[in-house]
Order: sequence, then C-alpha cells, then structure tokens
Amino acid sequence: MSSFVNAQVKDYKVVFDMSSRDTINQQAIVREIGLITGASPDAKLEVVIYGQGLDLAVKDRSTQQAAVQKLIADKKASFKVCAMTLKRNNIDPSQLVPGVEVVPDGIYEIISKQQEGWGYIKVAH
Amino acid sequence: MSSFVNAQVKDYKVVFDMSSRDTINQQAIVREIGLITGASPDAKLEVVIYGQGLDLAVKDRSTQQAAVQKLIADKKASFKVCAMTLKRNNIDPSQLVPGVEVVPDGIYEIISKQQEGWGYIKVAH
Amino acid sequence: MSSFVNAQVKDYKVVFDMSSRDTINQQAIVREIGLITGASPDAKLEVVIYGQGLDLAVKDRSTQQAAVQKLIADKKASFKVCAMTLKRNNIDPSQLVPGVEVVPDGIYEIISKQQEGWGYIKVAH
Repeated sequence: MSSFVNAQVKDYKVVFDMSSRDTINQQAIVREIGLITGASPDAKLEVVIYGQGLDLAVKDRSTQQAAVQKLIADKKASFKVCAMTLKRNNIDPSQLVPGVEVVPDGIYEIISKQQEGWGYIKVAH
Repeated sequence: MSSFVNAQVKDYKVVFDMSSRDTINQQAIVREIGLITGASPDAKLEVVIYGQGLDLAVKDRSTQQAAVQKLIADKKASFKVCAMTLKRNNIDPSQLVPGVEVVPDGIYEIISKQQEGWGYIKVAH
Repeated sequence: MSSFVNAQVKDYKVVFDMSSRDTINQQAIVREIGLITGASPDAKLEVVIYGQGLDLAVKDRSTQQAAVQKLIADKKASFKVCAMTLKRNNIDPSQLVPGVEVVPDGIYEIISKQQEGWGYIKVAH
C-alpha cells in the first residue's frame, strides 16, 4: 500500500500555510520539516508565513529562531513571509530571522505552489 | 522571482474554507479579500462557510456584517453557506447577511472548486 | 448551480487533515462523514491523523471511539494515523481504535491523495 502510494507521488513537495502565532504550531512545523527531510532528503518544503503567523519569522519573537535559521542554512526548507503582513505590523525585513525571504503576497505564493502541483498543509491544531 | 510566479498562475482564484467562529478569523478573511482585490481586481474569491463558521454569515451575529455585505455588493467575493449547517443550527436563509448564498453541501462546494483548479486556503490562526 | 457543480466533480473524494485534539473537531469530523455518506454513499473519505490529532484514534482517549469504529466497520471512511506520531507519543498500534490503520508518514499520505485528485479539508475551527 505504502509503496503503491510512493509510486504515485513523483516528488515530495509541500507548501505549509502558517498563519498562527501559536507556539505549538511553531514547534510542529519545525519538527515536521526535520522528520520529512530526515527520511526524504530531496523533499522540497516551503513555509509561507502571513497574518497571525508572523512571529515565527521575527527575531526575538520566534520561539524557533535557531531552528528556523538552521533549516534555511541547511537548505532543508525555505521560509517566505508576506510583505503585506510585514507592512501592517511595522516590521522591517532587517528584523526577520536570517534567511527568511519576503514575498509580495503570501496567499498568492501558496496558491501558486498549489497550481504547480505542490501538496498543501495548513498548520493548525 | 515574483514575476516568474505570476507567469505560472493564470488566474487568481481562491476558495476560502471558513469553519471558525473566531472573530480574528472573521476579520482576517475580510482584510485578506480587501488586500487581494485591491491588487488584483479580477481575482475570483469565494468564501465557503460551514460548521462553526456560521456566525460570519448571520445578521446580528457576524462581527463583519457591513464589510461582508459590501464585498458581495461590490462583487469582490462570493460568500456561500452550507445548507446542512443552516438546518442544524435552525437558521433560516432570511437571517443571512444580504447577498450570502446557500449551497447544499459546503465541503462539496470546496472540493468542487479545488477540482476546477482554484487555490485553497483554510482560514485559521 | 448545484447540478452544474455536480457535473464537474466526477467523484466525491476527500482527505481530511486532522492534527487537532480539540473535541469539537473530533465531533465535527464524525458528523461531517455521516452527512456526506448519507447523501453520497459512494463517497471516498479518508481521515489522516497526526501531530496533536492522535487522541481521536486512541482507545480510551478518543471522544468518538464508538463512532469512529462504526464508520470504519461500515466502510464509510478510513482512518489512518501517522507512525511517526505514534512513536513520538509511545503509543502502540494495539492501543488504536479497532480498524484504524497506520501509515509511515501522515503528511505524505495527505499530499499523495491531493496529487491523486482528492479534495483536501483541514479540520479546524
């Protein structure tokens, strides 16, 4: 069963939708990326951060700052934050965890990845 | 980067899955639709309301009644509520915010849009 | 309108993403499966349980144990739990509600179904 499913999925590509400031969700996304890339080193993983999710990406606010920075440096995943969310919260890109990228529109980024065939996971609990 | 992504997405079409009564989520969906349609006037946006999300669509319960009514009147987005959710909560369609539509099955509406290639965003935080 | 949408969707196939221990979410997923299969007996429904969602699948922790067991026995839906989540929580498969299956990786299971054209619903409120 599992091997059949494996045969169906050509690539392990997931866009994670992160719009929560909840620290359990912050921990979960870091843990999940670690587990996935441990088993599937070629997985393409992207976390799109917008709305209430902003804290994960901001220095001195993120409970996972070191982990996020390391995941990016090790090319395990990319983290992209919505420019409109930054502006609304008066956060300058210099305040972001090093390696976090800025995209013009977080929702647009997510649906673009969906349209390119990436899987979609909403981070929530 | 952004222009490349834009080239991939033919249309800005999103179905929002709203099953939360949380007022932050009610605010977020209205704000996001405003931002999206401000930048992309041709975006097709639909909010499907079911389960705990019902309050957003009901007069005198929605914290965003005026905003929802205006988004619909201005054709910025459509709002569709699940008939099974209405029935279970003893809400008559006459109690809905003007312009909100009723669909037989909210989940079916969402997966239909997904199958037609619309992006999917779960509203949660 | 509804019949037009029906014409677009060849099959009623949904993978539910359950990563919440919230009892309202546990009730919601059971209720939704009952409503869907009542109207669409041929619907293919799968609930993938991981992360904080584990309780739904564990005997003496699930608030919906009898309902889940009956949905599985009646072939209304399949329930699949992530092996990595089991391991992290020191839960043996023998502790699962009878009929619940184990998959190696819950997120992989979800994106596989998405790639096969199943609809995706995040369970949250």
